[in-house]
Amino acid sequence: MQATAEFQLIPLGAGVSVRREIERVVALLASRPLLIETHASGTNLEGELRDILDAVEAVHATLHADGAVRLVSYLKLETRTDKPPTLAGKRL
Amino acid sequence: MQATAEFQLIPLGAGVSVRREIERVVALLASRPLLIETHASGTNLEGELRDILDAVEAVHATLHADGAVRLVSYLKLETRTDKPPTLAGKRL
Amino acid sequence: MQATAEFQLIPLGAGVSVRREIERVVALLASRPLLIETHASGTNLEGELRDILDAVEAVHATLHADGAVRLVSYLKLETRTDKPPTLAGKRL
Amino acid sequence: MQATAEFQLIPLGAGVSVRREIERVVALLASRPLLIETHASGTNLEGELRDILDAVEAVHATLHADGAVRLVSYLKLETRTDKPPTLAGKRL
Repeated sequence: MQATAEFQLIPLGAGVSVRREIERVVALLASRPLLIETHASGTNLEGELRDILDAVEAVHATLHADGAVRLVSYLKLETRTDKPPTLAGKRL
Repeated sequence: MQATAEFQLIPLGAGVSVRREIERVVALLASRPLLIETHASGTNLEGELRDILDAVEAVHATLHADGAVRLVSYLKLETRTDKPPTLAGKRL
Repeated sequence: MQATAEFQLIPLGAGVSVRREIERVVALLASRPLLIETHASGTNLEGELRDILDAVEAVHATLHADGAVRLVSYLKLETRTDKPPTLAGKRL
Repeated sequence: MQATAEFQLIPLGAGVSVRREIERVVALLASRPLLIETHASGTNLEGELRDILDAVEAVHATLHADGAVRLVSYLKLETRTDKPPTLAGKRL
């Protein structure tokens, strides 16, 4: 099942600036079999739903392995059966 | 890796009332190895991160199999390494 | 225009535990002309849309005045014209 | 108080395609004293917090006046006191 998604991660207790963690997240997402588009509030994703969920699990596991103590993430998922969901199709 | 989560699903094109779909979502979540707590804006979850992600995939797959054409869902995930994340620990 | 809503606030750079800030948020929301229901992932709200938006502004202003350096909040809003939106009507 | 934000609106009961409503939302946001950046999952905003909240209220009011029966919206807000929050500063 193909899906589009948006992912945002917030590390708690990592200080006011979280740029290093966000760059790590984007690098992890980019290493996955997903189309990714970063923007100022998160990263949009396109791919198999299973691959998206696996990527989210990998992000949490990897950032904790890197030392993050507490992570909050937000994942918006969209699926549809009338046509393949694509990021391109959602742009104005 | 244990996690707490919040899940909300919105079916598009299903009409103004979506109660039937929401009841289906909660029944699906309740059939999973997860602690669930429903509230007026979604369902809070506690369990293994992998089980939570599997449940989300099952919700999308099952509702599409039931005839839903377009689904949008929101998943908030929290993980931490200093202590086990629990819903009880997050209540005031 | 009446609305229901869900509000969640995350202070960045406040350490791993943010309970003190969350208690402050709930106290601020409770001081407003709103019906509030706390749960493990946020606070559900019911009231006039303008009162909800004013409360959100007050939360950001007050927590910054208290010393918070960076705040991220999530507000979900629901409005409808076919019947008054209520938290009671959204529970299963 | 300056803020950055992300806004997403979902009309319920408007059918599977909601492009017309989304175009209306973006036009309304663009008419406000805000910097806006659309992407595949929503619209990023920068401006005074009060102007952002006023724009959200206007979107709900205008779409209902146009005939929308039920609206769900998601607003993410970020404020900070250590430097002015900007969309440019949040891009990688």
